Amino acid sequence: MKNTNVKPAEGKLGILCVGLGAVSSTFITGVLMIRKGLGKPVGSITQLAKIRVGKGDDAAYKSISEIVSMPSLDDVVLGAWDIIPDNAFESSMKAEVLRDRDIYPVKEELEKITPMKGVYDPDYVKALDGTWTKDTKATRWELTRQVREDIQRFKQENGCDRVVVVWAASTEIYIPRDSEVHDSIETFEAAMKADDRSHISPSMCYAYAAIAEGAPFIMGAPNTCIDIPAMWQFAEKENVPIAGKDFKTGQTMMKTVLAAAFRTRMLGVNGWFSTNILGNRDGLVLDVPENFKTKEVSKLGVIDTILKGDEYPDLYSDIFHKVRINYYPPRNDDKEGWDNIDIFGWMGYPMQIKVDFLCRDSILAAPLLLDLALFGDLALRAGKSGIQTWLSFYLKSPMHDDGHCPVNDLFQQYTILKNAIREMGGYEADEEID
Amino acid sequence: MKNTNVKPAEGKLGILCVGLGAVSSTFITGVLMIRKGLGKPVGSITQLAKIRVGKGDDAAYKSISEIVSMPSLDDVVLGAWDIIPDNAFESSMKAEVLRDRDIYPVKEELEKITPMKGVYDPDYVKALDGTWTKDTKATRWELTRQVREDIQRFKQENGCDRVVVVWAASTEIYIPRDSEVHDSIETFEAAMKADDRSHISPSMCYAYAAIAEGAPFIMGAPNTCIDIPAMWQFAEKENVPIAGKDFKTGQTMMKTVLAAAFRTRMLGVNGWFSTNILGNRDGLVLDVPENFKTKEVSKLGVIDTILKGDEYPDLYSDIFHKVRINYYPPRNDDKEGWDNIDIFGWMGYPMQIKVDFLCRDSILAAPLLLDLALFGDLALRAGKSGIQTWLSFYLKSPMHDDGHCPVNDLFQQYTILKNAIREMGGYEADEEID
Amino acid sequence: MKNTNVKPAEGKLGILCVGLGAVSSTFITGVLMIRKGLGKPVGSITQLAKIRVGKGDDAAYKSISEIVSMPSLDDVVLGAWDIIPDNAFESSMKAEVLRDRDIYPVKEELEKITPMKGVYDPDYVKALDGTWTKDTKATRWELTRQVREDIQRFKQENGCDRVVVVWAASTEIYIPRDSEVHDSIETFEAAMKADDRSHISPSMCYAYAAIAEGAPFIMGAPNTCIDIPAMWQFAEKENVPIAGKDFKTGQTMMKTVLAAAFRTRMLGVNGWFSTNILGNRDGLVLDVPENFKTKEVSKLGVIDTILKGDEYPDLYSDIFHKVRINYYPPRNDDKEGWDNIDIFGWMGYPMQIKVDFLCRDSILAAPLLLDLALFGDLALRAGKSGIQTWLSFYLKSPMHDDGHCPVNDLFQQYTILKNAIREMGGYEADEEID
Amino acid sequence: MKNTNVKPAEGKLGILCVGLGAVSSTFITGVLMIRKGLGKPVGSITQLAKIRVGKGDDAAYKSISEIVSMPSLDDVVLGAWDIIPDNAFESSMKAEVLRDRDIYPVKEELEKITPMKGVYDPDYVKALDGTWTKDTKATRWELTRQVREDIQRFKQENGCDRVVVVWAASTEIYIPRDSEVHDSIETFEAAMKADDRSHISPSMCYAYAAIAEGAPFIMGAPNTCIDIPAMWQFAEKENVPIAGKDFKTGQTMMKTVLAAAFRTRMLGVNGWFSTNILGNRDGLVLDVPENFKTKEVSKLGVIDTILKGDEYPDLYSDIFHKVRINYYPPRNDDKEGWDNIDIFGWMGYPMQIKVDFLCRDSILAAPLLLDLALFGDLALRAGKSGIQTWLSFYLKSPMHDDGHCPVNDLFQQYTILKNAIREMGGYEADEEID
Repeated sequence: MKNTNVKPAEGKLGILCVGLGAVSSTFITGVLMIRKGLGKPVGSITQLAKIRVGKGDDAAYKSISEIVSMPSLDDVVLGAWDIIPDNAFESSMKAEVLRDRDIYPVKEELEKITPMKGVYDPDYVKALDGTWTKDTKATRWELTRQVREDIQRFKQENGCDRVVVVWAASTEIYIPRDSEVHDSIETFEAAMKADDRSHISPSMCYAYAAIAEGAPFIMGAPNTCIDIPAMWQFAEKENVPIAGKDFKTGQTMMKTVLAAAFRTRMLGVNGWFSTNILGNRDGLVLDVPENFKTKEVSKLGVIDTILKGDEYPDLYSDIFHKVRINYYPPRNDDKEGWDNIDIFGWMGYPMQIKVDFLCRDSILAAPLLLDLALFGDLALRAGKSGIQTWLSFYLKSPMHDDGHCPVNDLFQQYTILKNAIREMGGYEADEEID
Repeated sequence: MKNTNVKPAEGKLGILCVGLGAVSSTFITGVLMIRKGLGKPVGSITQLAKIRVGKGDDAAYKSISEIVSMPSLDDVVLGAWDIIPDNAFESSMKAEVLRDRDIYPVKEELEKITPMKGVYDPDYVKALDGTWTKDTKATRWELTRQVREDIQRFKQENGCDRVVVVWAASTEIYIPRDSEVHDSIETFEAAMKADDRSHISPSMCYAYAAIAEGAPFIMGAPNTCIDIPAMWQFAEKENVPIAGKDFKTGQTMMKTVLAAAFRTRMLGVNGWFSTNILGNRDGLVLDVPENFKTKEVSKLGVIDTILKGDEYPDLYSDIFHKVRINYYPPRNDDKEGWDNIDIFGWMGYPMQIKVDFLCRDSILAAPLLLDLALFGDLALRAGKSGIQTWLSFYLKSPMHDDGHCPVNDLFQQYTILKNAIREMGGYEADEEID
Repeated sequence: MKNTNVKPAEGKLGILCVGLGAVSSTFITGVLMIRKGLGKPVGSITQLAKIRVGKGDDAAYKSISEIVSMPSLDDVVLGAWDIIPDNAFESSMKAEVLRDRDIYPVKEELEKITPMKGVYDPDYVKALDGTWTKDTKATRWELTRQVREDIQRFKQENGCDRVVVVWAASTEIYIPRDSEVHDSIETFEAAMKADDRSHISPSMCYAYAAIAEGAPFIMGAPNTCIDIPAMWQFAEKENVPIAGKDFKTGQTMMKTVLAAAFRTRMLGVNGWFSTNILGNRDGLVLDVPENFKTKEVSKLGVIDTILKGDEYPDLYSDIFHKVRINYYPPRNDDKEGWDNIDIFGWMGYPMQIKVDFLCRDSILAAPLLLDLALFGDLALRAGKSGIQTWLSFYLKSPMHDDGHCPVNDLFQQYTILKNAIREMGGYEADEEID
Repeated sequence: MKNTNVKPAEGKLGILCVGLGAVSSTFITGVLMIRKGLGKPVGSITQLAKIRVGKGDDAAYKSISEIVSMPSLDDVVLGAWDIIPDNAFESSMKAEVLRDRDIYPVKEELEKITPMKGVYDPDYVKALDGTWTKDTKATRWELTRQVREDIQRFKQENGCDRVVVVWAASTEIYIPRDSEVHDSIETFEAAMKADDRSHISPSMCYAYAAIAEGAPFIMGAPNTCIDIPAMWQFAEKENVPIAGKDFKTGQTMMKTVLAAAFRTRMLGVNGWFSTNILGNRDGLVLDVPENFKTKEVSKLGVIDTILKGDEYPDLYSDIFHKVRINYYPPRNDDKEGWDNIDIFGWMGYPMQIKVDFLCRDSILAAPLLLDLALFGDLALRAGKSGIQTWLSFYLKSPMHDDGHCPVNDLFQQYTILKNAIREMGGYEADEEID
């Protein structure tokens, strides 16, 4: 490894999950099993991928940890908050994602991971009943203070050198960005102190607390949370990296692949119909039209930024794009995404592609959680702060400040990721994006 | 445009199609309609794409003809050989690919395009009955001579400056590469003269004739034809570019996209089942197990070179891959490819993706034919000779000499294509492949 | 043929379509082509099916017209109303359902079929702009009178002995059954006279006029129209048969087949997700949640009456059933229905069935229109009046009076149809329904 | 229950499975769990269905055991032969069909079910290695004698009143019916004695032994076995019921439903493409073209007998039907059947239906095994002998003697089944088949 300005990954790294549900428990169980050699971290770039560094005769393929200093999974300490008191073993068993035989070998370790009490506001997660919560009458400011204490205590008790906080809980109801409250640190802090519950969501308490404690914060759901100027500024000010939002798992991941292919081949698109059926809490929340509205907006944008209708009006200026999410309890955590894509070729003649993706939300999300946590920590050690656009690869609606446009093409996002890693590793960021 | 070593595309360019069936007639009708502004060349990179040249502040997006000298479609002259005497109008009507309303506006021009008599050997295309053929008793060498005369006459009669020959006829039966016959120009020519029909296919007569006449030759089917050392050497010697083989249209194109996505995301693959139903002559030929064998071998290789099981044994070393082609007359030229892909994620948990591609062979192939012809001509003007690996983007089984490996990842192929164009345009070939 | 009480089908039969759009013009063009021997009435029971009559040694398979007196297609006269003035040729060409080559041979006849001016109320068909309408200020009662005059004039001018009226126009917005207006003839007529536009839809004017003129009326859309006691009573009183509602075409037809199969095999069902994409006016109307609500209610009921959750609680009492209709313009008249069905077998273990039906609304509806018109006329000649439940076979939401339950199982419906025909033909109605 | 000639189901009934693999162990585990109230016999007509008896006012819906005397599951004793020594618990665990939590509650009982040594001939099941076999050098006649002894011993040891034998093992290689050997009891017995291994398969030994012992025999695979005149005669002579062949589970079951629907609606069919992927031993055997040939013949016939191309030549005389079975190990016991059906409607216009059935072989087969065993016993008690065509409902290729045609329409088969039960119960067999 070259000498770089990245601080070495020494000591223990705490990964604190907000929410100890299906995604978190699958992630945690997996990490413990992998440590014992009883599982493979499939889907994780940090653990498995090899990246080229150097060009021509100097080219070499190296794993991430050969390029920059990365913590071993043995140095990771796992923790969580939740609004119900199930420990990680109980949660894993209830989730029915992993088979019993993939949970029992680490039962004892899982039972020791009990959640800290969660910040709970029933107005933000209507389908959920919190029984293991911090005082619901406390102000947002007070709650944030308590979360900070939780982080401090966790670090101390577990001898952690650094901590990353990852939101892996349910989607909150939509709160639109409000320029008066959300656009500066001052107005934002004032609203927290005034306990302005309609503008300050529970997730914002965690995010603010994490940043205040110098812990990178990752938003895995489509919550507004850190996607506001106040948070961007606060993260910059505190020199803390943040990244979001919404883990890019199944259908959207495929979309950002297929759209890239059509554009590469100059095949036109005039319709894209995407429907999803899923039976977990995400499905329940997103089946409500109001909640889905924001998700829809960002989902629709995804293919536009890839296809560039402005540049190719004959091919992509008239796309009928529709995305539907349907709560469908028979499926539980399994998700099915069915896409019908109407493309056209030579002389405008129509063709159809149908993609049926029988995926598993938690199985796809767990390695993203791991990578985002480890890369969040890497960013911190590399002195990066604020929005980490190089992590867009993992995110459905990559955050960006007001002056920029997101990159959604999966392969371009991967190029950006690789360049960032090369650079942190002291190599040239030598790949062009198109 | 910069000054480069590429000769300008002056004068007329003849595009001679071997076979005036569905693909060729769709291509020809399309070109004529597009010239009149009655259609769009969807799917064609040469006509529609914009490529970045220069980096950083110097970056600019330009169409191909702004980067290197390319002929206008108005300067293209179209011709064909076939073994039945239908003219391009009759062929277009019979193919039932385009609607009447997209053929009639250029009826007169189409009727003027009558095929030259084809080289016919019933043993190579068993399902077909030739009625418009060169003397079937003539030796391969004599037939090659006649094809050369056809090319010369066509050039002269149409005032063509340059000619490209593209194979767009049926797949011939498989002939394995025979090192004694196919590995040197000398033995190959001797076999032609000795009329060795079991080693010299009709398509080889066209290819040899084209090269001898200085015309780039493109192999659009999986025929062995130019995929032998004798042809590589001959093309190098005559300074003629060749490219093949097999237009990369539907299912394989998708495969080279999806496999790239899985590898990027480090998602494992343990099964890939691909089945096709199609009712045209290709289907008939490929339904015969012996004929399909070669196609199968090359089709299977496609994903291996992308996924690299050697480098990622936990993810890609144990893939059960099966490809089936079924003759299914109810579909005619419409092709349906159904893929089931068994992938796995975190901890090895399985997920499934099913892709149903209702495509149209001729609609997908026509723009590839156009691009390959124009790029074949560009290569000639740029002084390139032999196998043109930079055109792999368009080909199912990209040809390569014995010392190299093909690139199958669609996006990597596109990068290679763009770099080649940049270079010919006097720019830096600045994109890395991974 | 046996002697029966059914009056013979002598003289001409007029079939008057309300709406001369895609369905009607496909139907009309088809009838004219079939008469000339240029097409086949595929999908039509009256024209193609053979039914067993008699049992054991007396069993014989006969076509419908061998069992009861049926008019020949040569004796059918075609007409229509519409709110735009396109004749049947123009409408057929615009619909893009049939190819030009299947329309031109009967162009002259089609051009003679010009629509009578339609009853138009923009509040009932919001997406449509009527330019060929009866006076929009006239009362419902006055409009009904005008429609009656239309029917009389059509009969006289065309020498028709009998007339049937079939609604084949767009779905109107939903009007709930209102017991004060819709439950008796008197209150209903009073509302028409008072021009109560919120309770009396345009379709009701046609239905009332038809019944008053002794013409059977068929409701091919899900409109409330004749599905109210006032109409049932009026039809009984005037001795006129009525039938409805909503042509049972694609997805629902399949549903009533598959549900029957699951129940027969005692396979459990715990989820049924149905989504549709279609681009015609039906799609536009039904994409609006309020309009879809009624359709949804009836669509959901379909499988319940087949599966009988009360009788088989372990198998069918907990089904999550969801139906979605999506307006998707790229498809025009082509409709795609995608169903995912979660079934379970031995020990409750889950399995999945996905059905993708790429159908064509007008192609499926045209033969239903023909059969319903001819059977409506048969019912009249057989002295049947009021709701014709034996025609449920053709209908998505079979009408039934308040004391009965609909039969939705396609095969049971067919048995009922056959029994009714047998009986009218003087044979025993000898098939049991289960 | 009425008084009938059916002997009451008194005492214990032994069900002996040939093969203790996935299907048998799923069946056995299920029966044991259901007895304890820990599972439901979903898919079983005998356990769950209600059938109408009587007509009109006398109509009543009764379960099978209310109509005729049927054994309770508590009176069933389970046993098996196999060529590997795994007991039912081990086999169930290896099969990975049922979850651990659905096996452990009956672990003890399962462990007691150890297989008797099987008749093994490696030439008939090439993919399999027998380690728990009867003497492979013994003649077929001697082996049959040993199987008879097994049956006698099992009856005695378990106090069984009656026994049924069900083949639930792998498909044997195809042996064509040989008129010299297979057409009479005499020549057949002579061949057994002469140890004619090419004409006498292992499954024939079990079948002959069962019949000789008065035990009904059910053939659950497509083996030739009892589908020969010698067996029909022998069964008639010994007054023993036999039924076969091949459990009608996934794709074929669906086919016999959909074809029935198309014919009912007079929708034409011009193509039916069926492909299957499965990873169990059945898949391995059937992937070999020679083995598949018979299966293919019978599979193809299925839709012809339903659609009746002779009677409806415009609709069904030109169907391109293709069935493919692909061995695909990633799926294990899960089977996926993908059908594409090309239908046509009004004027011959094409439409497509695609059905993707993600099924589980053993889950679908287990209740069929139970029903066939119990109904086989019922037939015996009712004095029926020879081929039981009323059980066609459960079978892919319903056996029939040379003078008859099979019924394949699932709903017609169900009617036949119900009529037979009614009749045995002393009611009128009152349903007509069409």
